[in-house]
Amino acid sequence: MGELRQDIVTGQWVVMATGRARRPTDFTRPSVPTLPDEVKDCPFCPGHELMTPLEVLAIRPEDSEPNSPGWQVRVFPNKYPAFMTGEEVEPGTSMLPRRPADGSHEVIVHSPDHSLSLATMPAEQVELVLRVYRHRYRVNCQDPHVRYVHIIVNHGRDSGASLEHSHSQLFGVPLVPMLVMQELAGASWHQASKGECVYCRIISEEQLARQRVISANRSFVALAPFASRLPFEAWILPRAHQESFDLINEEQLDDFGEMLRDILGRYSEKFDNPPFNYFIHSAPCDGSEYPYYHWHLEVAPKLTTLGAFELGTSMMINITTPESATQFMLGSDTLT
Amino acid sequence: MGELRQDIVTGQWVVMATGRARRPTDFTRPSVPTLPDEVKDCPFCPGHELMTPLEVLAIRPEDSEPNSPGWQVRVFPNKYPAFMTGEEVEPGTSMLPRRPADGSHEVIVHSPDHSLSLATMPAEQVELVLRVYRHRYRVNCQDPHVRYVHIIVNHGRDSGASLEHSHSQLFGVPLVPMLVMQELAGASWHQASKGECVYCRIISEEQLARQRVISANRSFVALAPFASRLPFEAWILPRAHQESFDLINEEQLDDFGEMLRDILGRYSEKFDNPPFNYFIHSAPCDGSEYPYYHWHLEVAPKLTTLGAFELGTSMMINITTPESATQFMLGSDTLT
Repeated sequence: MGELRQDIVTGQWVVMATGRARRPTDFTRPSVPTLPDEVKDCPFCPGHELMTPLEVLAIRPEDSEPNSPGWQVRVFPNKYPAFMTGEEVEPGTSMLPRRPADGSHEVIVHSPDHSLSLATMPAEQVELVLRVYRHRYRVNCQDPHVRYVHIIVNHGRDSGASLEHSHSQLFGVPLVPMLVMQELAGASWHQASKGECVYCRIISEEQLARQRVISANRSFVALAPFASRLPFEAWILPRAHQESFDLINEEQLDDFGEMLRDILGRYSEKFDNPPFNYFIHSAPCDGSEYPYYHWHLEVAPKLTTLGAFELGTSMMINITTPESATQFMLGSDTLT
Repeated sequence: MGELRQDIVTGQWVVMATGRARRPTDFTRPSVPTLPDEVKDCPFCPGHELMTPLEVLAIRPEDSEPNSPGWQVRVFPNKYPAFMTGEEVEPGTSMLPRRPADGSHEVIVHSPDHSLSLATMPAEQVELVLRVYRHRYRVNCQDPHVRYVHIIVNHGRDSGASLEHSHSQLFGVPLVPMLVMQELAGASWHQASKGECVYCRIISEEQLARQRVISANRSFVALAPFASRLPFEAWILPRAHQESFDLINEEQLDDFGEMLRDILGRYSEKFDNPPFNYFIHSAPCDGSEYPYYHWHLEVAPKLTTLGAFELGTSMMINITTPESATQFMLGSDTLT
């Protein structure tokens, strides 16, 4: 069972998703398991399809059975959903505001091969994953309970991943998250006051400044943002102004896959397959138009731990400037 | 060198504090060191006073020399300050807003004994630490560069602590952090519309509901907040309406120490000395009055890892309800 609860002071909503942890021992960190055991017990590996909820999409040969091996990418509901439509919750009150955690929560397994990551799998496989993103993004946007679709990767245990096998998660969220609202407000303000998209402007400024551009191809630019919240944070932005991820076209899909592999490959090379997090920020799918918004992907290796300064202020302390991070990602051996 | 940079889209400020990490290998996690080596190399242990910046305050015998052994609590500037007045930074522009990271950043070592934590040291020692908090809070509030004083503890490596020896950090921040502004806005709105302090109201509602009160003494109540962001999160609130921590009186200091030890002791017992974070939220010291605000301490054991959902939404997924957390903290053996 799950529900959304609102902090009556800050207005922030919290997802109470209590399916996962029941016993105090669930919080004890497991000792690092060996790879063979992980594969044997891995619910995302071929042959273990019935260890997960039934698939809602799989890229597989036409003559193969659903929920059997043979797939290349596989999508199913999360076994412990943070969002799921139809749960009853106690009625909220003005002092205890709560509502159902309606929506969806899916897992997208990137490849049948347990040992591959997005940084090491073939380019065609990454493109396939992104194509599945676009498809599931569109399907979940149609859900009347979903107002925002959030696609993420947690790679590696220190990044928050509970399973090693490379996968994404798609959250169909029944409200627009506060950080996204802050970006929308800023982009709307910039559009109204300057007559331009703030992200388009950032792309052109950064290409001129040449201090924080990590990579660029036909359709995408990757840069270390000026106010990077995390060391080696990178934003991958489409050059074309596009409010929502699901507007991505075929040519862009190819180029997005190439850029994602490029950035993840640099992390992998520089930090020896580090844990990392990424997410896509895109316009809400709540029936409104957001012509001033510009979707993008934000990614960072997980190299540091947030502490009580960050928890209590929502302000980040970053120990690496984006300028040195860029130099290092471009090949420098040292951080200046 | 450090500076504050603002994200021009969200308005969020980030602290660039680059004194600490210079080499990529600085990001490699160290293997867990053994205790004796930690003590031998610990800059917070007696006899190692010259490994830290010179002390600004120490509770020590009157006839002892500054920066020598004999102290009970010792305060000095952080060697790698996130905030420090007087650094020059490049002028900001409208596209690249930046300003000096003016302010202060102090370390408060809780005890000369490397092996003690706030959960295990004598009550008198915890009170001494809180007394030092009050003193340094007041001193730093007088600094014209400081608009907000943030006191925190990161305990244990997984909580973000870089040193094992029990200590606090005090940040003199040159702006009011966004999360604090959100609390101020909510408290101000509640005062204006309901004619009461929102925190006073929460305390009385929770004492009636009796589902989320973990502990209570003469001057303080500890509760698991209704919209807990983290498993086993607890707020320690003074019963008396008080906008700022530095208004705490002698009787309250005693009771605050007792309550803090109680809560940390419960974590320690239930989770075997877990890493934890706490921070004090208090009214800004920027010259304005905040009569509607009510200072408090927020604490949580570090049992889970934030992932890309939280990073990209600023919305938390919590896998333990505050009601089960309270039951468990009160002695239940299982989480319901």
